[in-house]
Amino acid sequence: MRIRVEAAAVWPGGEQGWWTPGQVTWSANRIESVGPLTGEAADVDRVIRVEDGLVLPGLLNGHNHAAMSLMRGIADDSPLMEWLTQHIFPLEAHLTSEDVYVGTLLSCAEMIRGGTVGFADMYFFVDAVARAVETSGLRGWIARGLVEADDPGGEKLAEAVEFAHRWRGRAEGRVVGMLGPHAPYTCGPRYLERVAESAKSADLGIHIHLAESWQEVQDSQQRFGLTPVELAARAGILQSRVVVAHGVHLQDQDRKLLAAAQGGVVHCPVSNAKLGNGTMDVVRARREGVTVGLGTDGPASTNTLDMFLEMKAMAWGQKLLHRDPASFQAVEALRAATEGNAQILGGVSGRLEPGAPADLIVVGTRGTHLTPVHDWSSNAVYAATAADVRYTICNGVVLMEEGRLLTIDEEAVRREAAARARALIDRSR
Amino acid sequence: MRIRVEAAAVWPGGEQGWWTPGQVTWSANRIESVGPLTGEAADVDRVIRVEDGLVLPGLLNGHNHAAMSLMRGIADDSPLMEWLTQHIFPLEAHLTSEDVYVGTLLSCAEMIRGGTVGFADMYFFVDAVARAVETSGLRGWIARGLVEADDPGGEKLAEAVEFAHRWRGRAEGRVVGMLGPHAPYTCGPRYLERVAESAKSADLGIHIHLAESWQEVQDSQQRFGLTPVELAARAGILQSRVVVAHGVHLQDQDRKLLAAAQGGVVHCPVSNAKLGNGTMDVVRARREGVTVGLGTDGPASTNTLDMFLEMKAMAWGQKLLHRDPASFQAVEALRAATEGNAQILGGVSGRLEPGAPADLIVVGTRGTHLTPVHDWSSNAVYAATAADVRYTICNGVVLMEEGRLLTIDEEAVRREAAARARALIDRSR
Repeated sequence: MRIRVEAAAVWPGGEQGWWTPGQVTWSANRIESVGPLTGEAADVDRVIRVEDGLVLPGLLNGHNHAAMSLMRGIADDSPLMEWLTQHIFPLEAHLTSEDVYVGTLLSCAEMIRGGTVGFADMYFFVDAVARAVETSGLRGWIARGLVEADDPGGEKLAEAVEFAHRWRGRAEGRVVGMLGPHAPYTCGPRYLERVAESAKSADLGIHIHLAESWQEVQDSQQRFGLTPVELAARAGILQSRVVVAHGVHLQDQDRKLLAAAQGGVVHCPVSNAKLGNGTMDVVRARREGVTVGLGTDGPASTNTLDMFLEMKAMAWGQKLLHRDPASFQAVEALRAATEGNAQILGGVSGRLEPGAPADLIVVGTRGTHLTPVHDWSSNAVYAATAADVRYTICNGVVLMEEGRLLTIDEEAVRREAAARARALIDRSR
Repeated sequence: MRIRVEAAAVWPGGEQGWWTPGQVTWSANRIESVGPLTGEAADVDRVIRVEDGLVLPGLLNGHNHAAMSLMRGIADDSPLMEWLTQHIFPLEAHLTSEDVYVGTLLSCAEMIRGGTVGFADMYFFVDAVARAVETSGLRGWIARGLVEADDPGGEKLAEAVEFAHRWRGRAEGRVVGMLGPHAPYTCGPRYLERVAESAKSADLGIHIHLAESWQEVQDSQQRFGLTPVELAARAGILQSRVVVAHGVHLQDQDRKLLAAAQGGVVHCPVSNAKLGNGTMDVVRARREGVTVGLGTDGPASTNTLDMFLEMKAMAWGQKLLHRDPASFQAVEALRAATEGNAQILGGVSGRLEPGAPADLIVVGTRGTHLTPVHDWSSNAVYAATAADVRYTICNGVVLMEEGRLLTIDEEAVRREAAARARALIDRSR
C-alpha cells in the first residue's frame, strides 16, 4: 500500500525549511519521498489531501508515566512530598495490571489525538504498558521503574531485562524495552552499578530522573560530594543509551558528561513549572553539546499529554530565563519534540526523509486561532494545539483520520478508565 | 425568554465551591437563579442540557489589541525593538478602518470559541472595534490608544472622549469607552495629566501599560526619579478606574498605590514570557491588596486569545517564581479570569449570581484529556483548552452553540482576514 499526503505545508525536520505546498509518500512503513508538491500522484493507492494542512514529523514524548492518567489532577497544587506520599503512593499501591493497561490506553488515545506517535514510559506492570502500546499502534520505549528498596535481591531488575527480551521484535518493532532506575536518591550507587551492568550486557537503554529539583542536587552533593549526573556517570549509567528526564539543575561538569553520552536530556517544562522545580537552561545545554528532547512527565502532575503545550512552554521558559525573545526560535521547539527525542530514544530519525519510518501528522490550519498564516513554524508552535491535529500516522498506519481514532475504541476506554479511577480511590480508602 | 443550563458541574465564582450537578437559569439578560440541580425545570422556554459539561462564569480578557490578529506570528522570536519598529509599526501605518473591523471580528470569533465573553481593547479606529464588538455579541471595554507624539494638539484625546460618549448605552450597554494613554514612556507627565483630567470630567476609565519591562522601570527612575506607576499616579491616572496592563516589575510603593486605586493589574503571562519581560509576582500583589486580572495581550505577539492557556501560564509562572507548587491554586486562575477582570473593568460581576448579567460558558469534559475527573477546578484550568468550550453565552444571548458561532459568519471572516493580511503586507512593502 502506497499512500501520499498532500498539504499546504510540509516541514521535514532538520535544517530544511517548509515546502508550501508539499507532499509525503510512503509504502508499507517507510517513507519513499518527501518534498514540494508537483504534479499528480502516480502509482499511489491512496491520496490524503488536506488543503489547509501542515505536515510535521510525528511528535515524540520523551518522558511519561502514561498510566497515571487514572490519577489526573488528584491533589494538584499540594506540596510535592505531601502529593506523593499522601495521595499518589497510596493509590499506586492498589493499582492492578489491568488498571495500568486501561490507564495507558487512555493516554495512548490522548497522544494519538495530539499528534504524538511514540513515547518513553517509566512505570510498573510493563507488560500491560506494552500491550496498550501494541494495541494503539504507537511506539513505546518502555522502562520498568526500579527503586532499590523494593528490589533487595535484584529480581525486579532481572524481570525488567526479561521483559525487554520478551518484547524485542514484537509489535512490528514498535515496543523497545529499557531499564528504569528511578533516580540516584532512590537507587544507591551499588544498585545503579548493577543496572548499568545489566544494560550493557543486555544492550538496553536506560531511562532515569536526574537533577529534577535543586534539593536533590544539594542532597547529592552533601552526601556523596557528587551531583546526581556525576553519581550516575560513576555507576556506569552513561555508558549505555540514556534518557535523562528533567535535568533542570545541571552543572558545568554534568553538561560535559551528558554531551559525551549517547542519549540526552528530556526537558519537561510544564511539569518542572507546575511542581515549582525551575527551568532547565536548554539554550546553554544545547550550546555545550547536550541533545535536548521534550516530554510531558506523567498526566497526574502535568494533567495532559499535549506536546503542543510543551513546545509553547519550552519556548516561553527559555525566553523568560534569558530575558530575550530572540533567545529561542519556534522551530527549535519543533526540533526538540521530533529529532531531539528521536536522537535520545534511538531507532527513529524524527525527520521526514526517504527510508525513515512513516511517522507523521497533519495539523489543520483552518481554525480561526490559526488565521492568517504568516509563519508556519510560529503557527505550529505558538498557535496550534493538540485539538488541531487531524491525522496521526505511525509506522505507515493511519491511527487517526479526521479526528476519528482507528485503533482504539475511545468511548469505551474513557468509560472504563473513569470506572477504574473511581474503584481505585474506593479501594485505597 | 427564560433559559436554563443543566450540567455536571457549576462553579459560580467567589468562595463557593462546585455544584455537581448544577444549573443556571436566566431571563432576558439577567441571571435568576444558580445552584445545585434539583427537580425538573419549570416555566422555562429552553433547557440546554450538557451532561458532561462544566459551567463557568464567562471568561474576560483584560488586555488585548484584538485587530492585531491580522499580524499573528509576524517576525516572532525577534528582539522586541526590531519586531516593533521594523515589522509591526510599518504594517500598522497601512491599516485601514475596515482592516481593524475585520481583524477585530476575527478575534471576536476566536474569543467566543474559547469561552471569552468580553475584553478590554486598546487600539485605533475604535469605531471599527466597537462595530465588531456590537456585531459579535461580546462585551468590549474599548480604549483608543494615545501616544503624545501623535497628538500634539490633543485632538485625538478629544476624539477618544467623543467616541466614549457616542457609544454610551449602545449595543445593549456592551460597549464601554475608555481612554488609552499607551504608557509613560510614550506619554509625558503633562499629557498624562490631560488624559487624567479628561477621564475624570467625562467619567471614563483608563487603560494603560505600566511596568512591562525592567528597562522601562529603570529608564523611568533615571529620568524622573519615579517608577512608571508613581508617574501615572502623580499625573492623576489612578484617580479614575484604571486597567493596568502587565505590571511585571512592580515595586513596594507601586503595589501600595494600586491597592488604593479603583481597578487593578491585568497580568499577561504568555506575552510577558514570550517577549522575555519576566513574571509578575501575582501572589504578592494580591496579598498586598492589588486586584489582579488576566489577559492575553495582542494576538500578534501572543499568537492566540486562549484564556485557558493564560490560566495555565499564570499558575505555572507563580509556582516557578515561588519555587512552590502550593503557592498558587487552580481556582485562583479561574478567579483572575472572571471576577478579577470584572472588578478591574467594572459593570459586570464575573460571578454567576442572581441579578448579574447572564455571561456564562459550558465546557465539555468528555474529551480523553479530561478523563477521569478527580477535581473540577484542576481539570478546568490545567487540562481543558479553548477547544473544549461548547457554549458561550453573553448578556443572555447564546453566541456559540455546540461549537457553531451564531453571530459571526466565521468562514467568511477567516477568508476576508487572510486576504486583508496579504494585502496589508503587499501595501507596506
